[in-house]
Amino acid sequence: MSSLLEQLIDALRCLPGVGQKSAQRMAYHLLERNREGGQRLSDALKEAIERIGHCGQCRDFSETPLCPTCASASRERSLLCAVESPADRLVIEQATGYRGLYFVLQGRLSPLDGIGPRELGLDQLAARLAEGEAKELIIATNPTVEGEATAHYLAQLARQAGVRPSRLAHGVPLGGELEYVDRGTLAHAFGSRLEVES
Amino acid sequence: MSSLLEQLIDALRCLPGVGQKSAQRMAYHLLERNREGGQRLSDALKEAIERIGHCGQCRDFSETPLCPTCASASRERSLLCAVESPADRLVIEQATGYRGLYFVLQGRLSPLDGIGPRELGLDQLAARLAEGEAKELIIATNPTVEGEATAHYLAQLARQAGVRPSRLAHGVPLGGELEYVDRGTLAHAFGSRLEVES
Repeated sequence: MSSLLEQLIDALRCLPGVGQKSAQRMAYHLLERNREGGQRLSDALKEAIERIGHCGQCRDFSETPLCPTCASASRERSLLCAVESPADRLVIEQATGYRGLYFVLQGRLSPLDGIGPRELGLDQLAARLAEGEAKELIIATNPTVEGEATAHYLAQLARQAGVRPSRLAHGVPLGGELEYVDRGTLAHAFGSRLEVES
Repeated sequence: MSSLLEQLIDALRCLPGVGQKSAQRMAYHLLERNREGGQRLSDALKEAIERIGHCGQCRDFSETPLCPTCASASRERSLLCAVESPADRLVIEQATGYRGLYFVLQGRLSPLDGIGPRELGLDQLAARLAEGEAKELIIATNPTVEGEATAHYLAQLARQAGVRPSRLAHGVPLGGELEYVDRGTLAHAFGSRLEVES
C-alpha cells in the first residue's frame, strides 16, 4: 500500500463519523471513480478554510467581516434569535419565515468542558442587547440539559438589558403519533395544553 | 450562508455514503473544530490525486511505475492472486500469510455496465500467464453472481495458459453460529463437507 494512500486514509478520518473502514472506502472510491470530485473537494476545503471566518456581529460563518444577513437592510432589527450553531441558524432560516437577525453562540454553556459565557461571546451579546435596538431575544437553543441552562442564562441577560426573552414552544411534533412521542415531551405537551378557540 | 460554504458542502457530497445532511455536518465540524485536519485533508487529497497512479504490472494503486509488492525480490513469483479491488488485495495481505503476487482487476465482469475483459485488463493478465512464471492463479473475486462469472472466465484463461486455477473455499465463517448463517452458505458448506481426519 502506498504511503500517500495511507496519508489520505488517515486524513479522511478527521471527518465526523468516519472510521478506518469508511475512510478506506472513500479513498478508494475517489481514486478509482471520481478523481475530479476529489480535486474539487481539495480545492473547496482549501478555499473555505482560508477564507471563511466569523461575522463580527452575529458570529456565524462569513467570508466578509459582516455576514450578508447582518449587513442586509431588509431584516427586522428589533428581533434577535440566539442559536447554538450555524446549522441551527440555517434550519430556522429555511423552515420559518423569520426575518430578524441572529446571534450564533457556536456552542452551549458546558462548564465541565471549559465552555463558559466568554467562549460563547455572551459579553458581545450583552453589549448588543444594551444598545437597545433589539426588543425581543428569541432563544432557540436545543432542548437538552445544557441547552436549557444556556437558555436560562440568556433569558437573564435579556431581562437585565430590558429586552423581552422568548423561547421556542415545546410539544408533540406535527405529523407525529402520540404513541411514539417520548414521555418527557408528552408530559410537557400535556402540561402546557392550550384552550381550543372556537 | 456563504457561497464558499455551499461549495464545500457540495464538494463533500462526492464522498460515498455522504448526503446533504452529513456533508453539512462535516463542513461545520471542520470549520468549527478542526481547520488543521481540514487543511491536511485538502493537501493529502491533492497529493494523492496527482501522484497515485496504477502499477504497470498488477494494476494496484501505486506512486511508482511498479508497486513495492511487484518490485519486491522476496515475493513468491509462482503464485498470482486475482482480486477485484485494491481493498480486497489489502485485506488478503493483512489477514493471510500470502507471499505471492497480485493482479487487481479494478472491477468485475458486468456486461450490462459495459465492463468486459478489456476494462479489467484481462489481455494483460493473459499475457502474464503466458510468460510461464506463474504456476497457480488464486481467484479471489467476491462470491456474488458477477464475481462468480468473473472467476469462471479467469479459470478458463488460466487453463488455456497451462496455469492451475484455484478458488477461495466457501463455507461457514469461523466464530459464526449455524443458526445465523444464510441458507446458501450453509447448503454449500453442507455439500462440500470434508472428512474429519483422525
